[in-house]
Amino acid sequence: MCRWLAYSGTPMLLETLLYEPDHSLIDQSLHSRLGVETTNGDGFGIGWFGPEMETPAIVRETGPAWSNRNLREIAGHVRSSLFFAHIRASTGSAVQQTNCHPFRHGRWMWMHNGAIAEYHRVRRDLALAVDPRLFLDIEGSTDSEMMFFLALTFGLEEDPPGAVARMAGLVEEIGHEHGVEHPLQMTVAVTEGRRLWAFRYSSQRASRSLYYSSRVETLRALHPGMPFLRKASDDTRLIVSEPLGNLPGVWNEVPEGSCGVVRPEGDKLFPFAPQPV
Amino acid sequence: MCRWLAYSGTPMLLETLLYEPDHSLIDQSLHSRLGVETTNGDGFGIGWFGPEMETPAIVRETGPAWSNRNLREIAGHVRSSLFFAHIRASTGSAVQQTNCHPFRHGRWMWMHNGAIAEYHRVRRDLALAVDPRLFLDIEGSTDSEMMFFLALTFGLEEDPPGAVARMAGLVEEIGHEHGVEHPLQMTVAVTEGRRLWAFRYSSQRASRSLYYSSRVETLRALHPGMPFLRKASDDTRLIVSEPLGNLPGVWNEVPEGSCGVVRPEGDKLFPFAPQPV
Amino acid sequence: MCRWLAYSGTPMLLETLLYEPDHSLIDQSLHSRLGVETTNGDGFGIGWFGPEMETPAIVRETGPAWSNRNLREIAGHVRSSLFFAHIRASTGSAVQQTNCHPFRHGRWMWMHNGAIAEYHRVRRDLALAVDPRLFLDIEGSTDSEMMFFLALTFGLEEDPPGAVARMAGLVEEIGHEHGVEHPLQMTVAVTEGRRLWAFRYSSQRASRSLYYSSRVETLRALHPGMPFLRKASDDTRLIVSEPLGNLPGVWNEVPEGSCGVVRPEGDKLFPFAPQPV
Amino acid sequence: MCRWLAYSGTPMLLETLLYEPDHSLIDQSLHSRLGVETTNGDGFGIGWFGPEMETPAIVRETGPAWSNRNLREIAGHVRSSLFFAHIRASTGSAVQQTNCHPFRHGRWMWMHNGAIAEYHRVRRDLALAVDPRLFLDIEGSTDSEMMFFLALTFGLEEDPPGAVARMAGLVEEIGHEHGVEHPLQMTVAVTEGRRLWAFRYSSQRASRSLYYSSRVETLRALHPGMPFLRKASDDTRLIVSEPLGNLPGVWNEVPEGSCGVVRPEGDKLFPFAPQPV
Repeated sequence: MCRWLAYSGTPMLLETLLYEPDHSLIDQSLHSRLGVETTNGDGFGIGWFGPEMETPAIVRETGPAWSNRNLREIAGHVRSSLFFAHIRASTGSAVQQTNCHPFRHGRWMWMHNGAIAEYHRVRRDLALAVDPRLFLDIEGSTDSEMMFFLALTFGLEEDPPGAVARMAGLVEEIGHEHGVEHPLQMTVAVTEGRRLWAFRYSSQRASRSLYYSSRVETLRALHPGMPFLRKASDDTRLIVSEPLGNLPGVWNEVPEGSCGVVRPEGDKLFPFAPQPV
Repeated sequence: MCRWLAYSGTPMLLETLLYEPDHSLIDQSLHSRLGVETTNGDGFGIGWFGPEMETPAIVRETGPAWSNRNLREIAGHVRSSLFFAHIRASTGSAVQQTNCHPFRHGRWMWMHNGAIAEYHRVRRDLALAVDPRLFLDIEGSTDSEMMFFLALTFGLEEDPPGAVARMAGLVEEIGHEHGVEHPLQMTVAVTEGRRLWAFRYSSQRASRSLYYSSRVETLRALHPGMPFLRKASDDTRLIVSEPLGNLPGVWNEVPEGSCGVVRPEGDKLFPFAPQPV
Repeated sequence: MCRWLAYSGTPMLLETLLYEPDHSLIDQSLHSRLGVETTNGDGFGIGWFGPEMETPAIVRETGPAWSNRNLREIAGHVRSSLFFAHIRASTGSAVQQTNCHPFRHGRWMWMHNGAIAEYHRVRRDLALAVDPRLFLDIEGSTDSEMMFFLALTFGLEEDPPGAVARMAGLVEEIGHEHGVEHPLQMTVAVTEGRRLWAFRYSSQRASRSLYYSSRVETLRALHPGMPFLRKASDDTRLIVSEPLGNLPGVWNEVPEGSCGVVRPEGDKLFPFAPQPV
Repeated sequence: MCRWLAYSGTPMLLETLLYEPDHSLIDQSLHSRLGVETTNGDGFGIGWFGPEMETPAIVRETGPAWSNRNLREIAGHVRSSLFFAHIRASTGSAVQQTNCHPFRHGRWMWMHNGAIAEYHRVRRDLALAVDPRLFLDIEGSTDSEMMFFLALTFGLEEDPPGAVARMAGLVEEIGHEHGVEHPLQMTVAVTEGRRLWAFRYSSQRASRSLYYSSRVETLRALHPGMPFLRKASDDTRLIVSEPLGNLPGVWNEVPEGSCGVVRPEGDKLFPFAPQPV
């Protein structure tokens, strides 16, 4: 499995969140506490939006995040108001750049932790459901990229929660056709540079961990001495596979079977369930 | 495009053929004379059979061959009586290990120079023709790997020339359906460890270059001083994208539209044409 | 040998100079015209200054620049008013990140094309001349990095032209002691984020090529239709190993044995010669 | 720190020891039990002798061993009667091929787990003690390679235990001069293809773990059912940083401050202590 982090808020050096917290994502690459694997060393990726950027910049590598000097350089020099970071623990598919997250299509950026159960049995049927015009853009061999292309096929760019629900519906339908009991396990983040959606769902109702940060004003009241919070604007929000530290009051579990959206017009959390295609 | 070399004969250190000739494959990685590109620096691969080996060993990397120390080490220390070597010049698909040749399935090893024209238009239809049980084993995104899996689907393990002919027939049929004038351009080598087949074909009848070495006894008469020839057994044969040097009498062009097989019971060269599936 | 490009001027997407020109640095990585080698595929690096950056960000990789997706991403999304780019053709030392340019020390960034002749004979004596407090920061095995650390030892941060002259003086002195006829061949660029120095020198007075761009107002008069020039401020300047295209009036050879400095208070070109230490 | 394995005995597929045991070296790369770090993912290397090989073949890579396909291929196809394998956890020096073990000089192969304490303070003085004719061959930046070159300087090829003792003596002497309390921590393996020496020593007398396997005839009596033992010749011996499993009677601790030699004329274990140079 994997670990990921999605940030939206005051422009921030990436390293502030990727390297500096006690249990930062880089620390999680070696010592994950809540993941299926303690080591997430099979590649990593970052994607960020910045001023004047039509599309996010995406940098992905196949080695471990903890020793990558280019990641350290970029994180120490690039500021962004909306960025994704992902560390990978392969469950079998090749360790290659095209299997690293985030994935991109136009302005849209996608990352995932989880798995389509018994993917080898359903991969071909899922591939057939991808819009033929999108099919060629599939470059890797992961279930995560397939989920992204299915969501694009089902209208991600117009209705993200609906498209993800239809994708999940198809994955469950085809899984069940092949006799898979619990076809889907997912925590997904997706953005187009302005809004950020996060999904937590699994067929078995035992989803991988997912947390969101409390409101900045609440955090300021709780932890008045934290320099990070002084710089952060009120709409700053983090969504993470596992908390970046043990500070009380900071982290809230995303409820099982739900979707959250972070956006300038106000954040929202609502139930999520697969839909038939 | 790419360059490749296939060897069958007396067990030989790989470096004897990969590094030592004037215009060795490693030299071709920087200075190809007959290729579409002079530089073939987008990955490489070697595959070899040795004593007691059920399957070929395959080592592939994404960097240039000319500077790869592990390739130099292996070539300088491993002997083989049947090996493939390939250097890649990507025409767009990702530079990743799973896109490097040779490809393997069980005992079978495949490498290719050429292209399926306008692959993005036909990729999905070709993918659908692959045996569903084989489909999951496709790991990369090249036309070359797709050709291998189509040939496997069409019986490569029972009838290599027939299976390759049916693969070529399907590629032409689907290409024509999509309005592609000249769908296929290929020089292919394939082996199961005992016999070695080479194919030269293109829809346009203007195939990439391909050469085979003269019979060892002929070469000994022509070039009595060459140490390599003293060691080589009578059934030693090389097939190469371009000659490894300028020695007269050594290299013969594989005729347009033909297939050659190198095997213990005697080599054979015969016409090759696509067949309807 | 290598190729490099140094830019100072209006903040610019890196790709504008690295990818878009006819004979861009990326094109030179495959098809250098003036270099000793036509292929520069043994690693690359970029270093850039941006707003609020205390030190330059440096990203280096060991593969070829032409196929590197992360370089393409960064170049397409990062803007800088002062950046370096370098493509490497190794003359023997290992293809590894720590041998890629630019090198950095604090705010200072250094890149080089050329060689210390017969480096194996003089390397140890040169290493002994490096300030012991700096010695540990040497990470790679190139002559280029050694030249940087010698220049730092000799006061690069206070007097760049003087320090480089003393470095060149020492290299020649130690080379001559070991019987090397022409010890040094160099084109060097160095910056601290505000000013940019370029050096062209060789013991034999036959230095590698180096060019600087004409004044922007001159270029605007010559080529009124070029979009790049409309965006460029008057103090914009490029220094390159070889011209990025064939446009007349754009490129001027840096004279043999000279140093140029690009800086807000006006550019300057003056003679350069090694000095005794 | 690192983990390593040295094998001498009946020609064996590398995977038999690298992948198949319960707690194989590959498993240790993710889940080391006795190492300072649980993850050893900063590169790996193997080196092997085979028939007709003048020098060992050495393959090293910078990524984690657990996901490396080329390592899997080589281990699954190459047999050797004397081989080394090493997995690395960097303590700061660059993750690059030239910092991976084993190191080679002619027929000699060296690998190490441990550290020279406060290496940055003593590196330069140690470098000065290396034979100037050997100095250029130092390619990386690790203390491990420096120890190898010091041992070579002090006569490794004539008297391995003596040369290693003098190397250790120098490291302690120079460390003490710089006020380092416990300058050396090492477990080293070295071979020339016929004999294999292993050293366990630390200035503090608290050395990293090191184990050797019991005599094959003892093991056969203890574990009559093990297929590996049926194939193994009587002189087969393994030396490992940590046991490859929990089988009773198999693993014996190399005593603190000792050196063992495995050789055709009989193995031997004797005390080891640094010597003044």
